[in-house]
Amino acid sequence: MGVFFIKICVILPHMIKEISSPQNPEIKNLIQLQEKSRKRRKEKLFPVEGIRETGLALKGGFSLKKLFFCQDLFPQEKLIEFTEKQDPEIIEISLEIYRKLSYRSSTEGLISVFKSRENSLKNLKLEKENPLILVAEAPEKPGNIGALLRTADAAALDAVIIANPKTDLYNPNIIRSSVGGVFTIPVATGSTKEIIDFLQHKLIKIYAAALQASKEYQKIDFTGPAAIVVGTEAEGLSEKWLENSTQNIIIPMQGKIDSMNVSVAAGILIFEAKRQRAKCDF
Amino acid sequence: MGVFFIKICVILPHMIKEISSPQNPEIKNLIQLQEKSRKRRKEKLFPVEGIRETGLALKGGFSLKKLFFCQDLFPQEKLIEFTEKQDPEIIEISLEIYRKLSYRSSTEGLISVFKSRENSLKNLKLEKENPLILVAEAPEKPGNIGALLRTADAAALDAVIIANPKTDLYNPNIIRSSVGGVFTIPVATGSTKEIIDFLQHKLIKIYAAALQASKEYQKIDFTGPAAIVVGTEAEGLSEKWLENSTQNIIIPMQGKIDSMNVSVAAGILIFEAKRQRAKCDF
Repeated sequence: MGVFFIKICVILPHMIKEISSPQNPEIKNLIQLQEKSRKRRKEKLFPVEGIRETGLALKGGFSLKKLFFCQDLFPQEKLIEFTEKQDPEIIEISLEIYRKLSYRSSTEGLISVFKSRENSLKNLKLEKENPLILVAEAPEKPGNIGALLRTADAAALDAVIIANPKTDLYNPNIIRSSVGGVFTIPVATGSTKEIIDFLQHKLIKIYAAALQASKEYQKIDFTGPAAIVVGTEAEGLSEKWLENSTQNIIIPMQGKIDSMNVSVAAGILIFEAKRQRAKCDF
Repeated sequence: MGVFFIKICVILPHMIKEISSPQNPEIKNLIQLQEKSRKRRKEKLFPVEGIRETGLALKGGFSLKKLFFCQDLFPQEKLIEFTEKQDPEIIEISLEIYRKLSYRSSTEGLISVFKSRENSLKNLKLEKENPLILVAEAPEKPGNIGALLRTADAAALDAVIIANPKTDLYNPNIIRSSVGGVFTIPVATGSTKEIIDFLQHKLIKIYAAALQASKEYQKIDFTGPAAIVVGTEAEGLSEKWLENSTQNIIIPMQGKIDSMNVSVAAGILIFEAKRQRAKCDF
């Protein structure tokens, strides 16, 4: 006869802390985490707004430290779902405080706080032998990084690496515009030199999106270990990438405007690589 | 012996009107054109900010009615360039007024006013026998329409058709986010029913991006006359499209998030069609 266990998870009222003053230090601290990159780095914590995004961070294996919920908005049966595997501090906040904290208008009454990861290249594990990676050099806006991460999730890339990012990866704009993709894809950051060394050491081919000396992307064989590297819309990639690339690649612009949105361009390149790799069979 | 003519274009000081009061009716009128869709429709005029965008509108054959320039910012040798083929009213405005009128921070001292087009389906001429068209149903935000138009320009699509748009096509956000693409690509609007009739009448195959009963996009033959139809991120396409499509198509989502940015998705579909049509040779 087998023995089995049932884990019973109960949240009792005394386990929930209530805050109704915007002056409460917990709230002030949370606002600083939302607004200040330095604070997030120092405390190794970051806030996440929304039920879906919190769910994706949990799925991504992030460690949940705090849950702020607003009774008027948040479906409380979800509390159990979010706390059954982890043991965060649970804090009920008033609607007034929630409105002050939340960014979105159509919002769901939940802000959680997670422990951040280091995202260094040395921690980046590539699980497949034949990885497909996206590298983005210094995207101007957090929203651009987010958009790239969302596309990377859709293609189930093996990693996204950001060169010389201008913000930490747990910037609320990145989380929001990635729709949680920052949690579902292995992500690392590093200097351009570090990333080139990393890729070359692992024999991953470097395909740099560039205007000079470039081959049309659809003529490239992306079926081996490959990194697709994109720069900013305004300035493109730095010289170092172009010098160290296996091949510069280009999406031919056929219209009258000579540029594309960087996340659209990355999407086209990534999905062409996926198409080739699946031999029309994914 | 041939005879040739030189057209001499001179702008004399008396041809330039100067405005330094924000209360001037010209300025008030311009602000209304920027802010009010109804005003744009009524006067059949729309404002364009920026040198590049103005240049693209001229290239697109739009009729230039007025040029507001700010002496402190605008390189005046360009005045000739913009007025040699057309005869707009030229108005010099003060820096103070320009700052009030302009949206962008890194701006170039130029706001022009053009005559709008009707953009009805009956005016839409498809020049090629084998057109590739993008249809977008009721995009939520002007920025989404703009992003689609920018991608459509890069692929030199034969037309973009917007079904049931929530704004006029000369909304400043559309112009800005299309980077002028709204001027370089034939664009039309119509109801879903009108557009379906138009496409069916011209024997253009309808490929509707959908989750139900869909075939993976890379297995579709896009080499014949084709319309790629995309809906909104939140709600997808309306039933009518799905019922009348030649084939529903899908980009398989391989990650943990079940959706993509609509302009990235459209870019992937459009460029796959272009790749097939060029037989890897564009």
